[in-house]
Amino acid sequence: MNPFGFSTEIIRSKDNPAVKFFRKLMASKKERQNSRLFVLEGRRLVFDALKENAPVRRVFITESAAADSAGEKLAELIHDNIKVVIISDEIGNKISDTGNTQGIFAQCSFDEKYENIIELKKGGKYIVLYELQDPGNAGMIIRTADAMGMDGVLFCNSCDVYNPKVVRSTMGSLFRVPVYRSVSLENVFSAAEKSDLKTFAAVVDESASDLKKTSFESGGIIFIGNEGNGLPDEVSSACNKKITIKMTGNIDSLNAAMAAGIMMWELTGNG
Amino acid sequence: MNPFGFSTEIIRSKDNPAVKFFRKLMASKKERQNSRLFVLEGRRLVFDALKENAPVRRVFITESAAADSAGEKLAELIHDNIKVVIISDEIGNKISDTGNTQGIFAQCSFDEKYENIIELKKGGKYIVLYELQDPGNAGMIIRTADAMGMDGVLFCNSCDVYNPKVVRSTMGSLFRVPVYRSVSLENVFSAAEKSDLKTFAAVVDESASDLKKTSFESGGIIFIGNEGNGLPDEVSSACNKKITIKMTGNIDSLNAAMAAGIMMWELTGNG
Repeated sequence: MNPFGFSTEIIRSKDNPAVKFFRKLMASKKERQNSRLFVLEGRRLVFDALKENAPVRRVFITESAAADSAGEKLAELIHDNIKVVIISDEIGNKISDTGNTQGIFAQCSFDEKYENIIELKKGGKYIVLYELQDPGNAGMIIRTADAMGMDGVLFCNSCDVYNPKVVRSTMGSLFRVPVYRSVSLENVFSAAEKSDLKTFAAVVDESASDLKKTSFESGGIIFIGNEGNGLPDEVSSACNKKITIKMTGNIDSLNAAMAAGIMMWELTGNG
Repeated sequence: MNPFGFSTEIIRSKDNPAVKFFRKLMASKKERQNSRLFVLEGRRLVFDALKENAPVRRVFITESAAADSAGEKLAELIHDNIKVVIISDEIGNKISDTGNTQGIFAQCSFDEKYENIIELKKGGKYIVLYELQDPGNAGMIIRTADAMGMDGVLFCNSCDVYNPKVVRSTMGSLFRVPVYRSVSLENVFSAAEKSDLKTFAAVVDESASDLKKTSFESGGIIFIGNEGNGLPDEVSSACNKKITIKMTGNIDSLNAAMAAGIMMWELTGNG
């Protein structure tokens, strides 16, 4: 018997099929797409996923972690539909993506609710990431959206939201903010029209409207572009308005996540 | 003869003392401190350093890069006091920290101007990073400070500003913003008093003053704390005022760089 109330074998081989499958999910976007599963690592992420009722399918915990407070906490949060697998500490180190593992991992299903845009909220506040590539930026934007009270983050031709680096840098916010994994531009624009939401292109361009003077009273959707190239013209021209962050310093562009954060700060009326 | 107007040997051995020294500077904070030198990698960083008259001492360029537009650009920007060393492409790949090198590197002296705080500007706008550890955060804060027009960034018990990851993520802003490498708390507080600058502790605390309602008309110094722990009580209590970012979302804390960015946005009157 173990702290989770049932007897179970301890996995000690890296050739175990469950371990091999976990590592594939961690490394390969294609594997994630095919199985519609992604992985979590670390106490905070796994426990946040369980607390927020994310569709967790399986939890891996090392012998050491199972014997300490992580095991106790897991026993509290776990429920019947979730399989708990105990692994040796050595396997824990092998499958870890962080170099300094806390010994707890999970597999979680894609959130079906946010597969396609059915409808955006009238008066809602959204951010679209268009061709954004850096996982750290994507994660930071999701975390900031959670803090600012945004209604959703939409990925459009961007990095994979279920990349372990994105998931980790959301710090659990992935389970609280509606995140659309992969939407088309067409769908975003038609959903915007249906819900009377204005679309705003974030650009670095002196002639664009000043973010500070833009009214977001009836909500809106802000488009953020690629780290190096920004938004392509065909996207920014398709939006209702181009907006820009006017600043008094030596350079006129910010890191994409920082720009998104300041845009959300003003959009949500926090700013 | 090479594009830089003088004949030079091409270094092909990783045991060459200049190559070995460069690698040590990249890897070791102690080596950097002892020699008071740090390293740059990439076209943008090296060319920004030269344009901004940073104290560049030596440039390494691979044979391939020397033969393309990087070589031309370097020949334009270089001056007499800087030694140019041509290395084989293989050595370029060896000394690269980025995995995908552009074949141009430099060694640069610490900026003596910002070793000790002599004086802070009256009415100036500064940010102190106290026990901040993540190089990506530190670099992003310096880049944002450059865009917002801050008067300086002060490192206090934080990561090494000359760590190659910090340097890289500043995107060249390190050469435009005054960055104090390592100051003591005592010196910051006495410099603040001397220049009549108010000190503000950035905290996550409902009872602290709302950032939006704080007047920064006469400038000020904002203290940002460690990623996990924030500012220790003895630091936040020593400041004139505690300020907090009030938000309407699900969580009340932001990534440290994002929090610093929003604080600077409001402090500089850009917000």
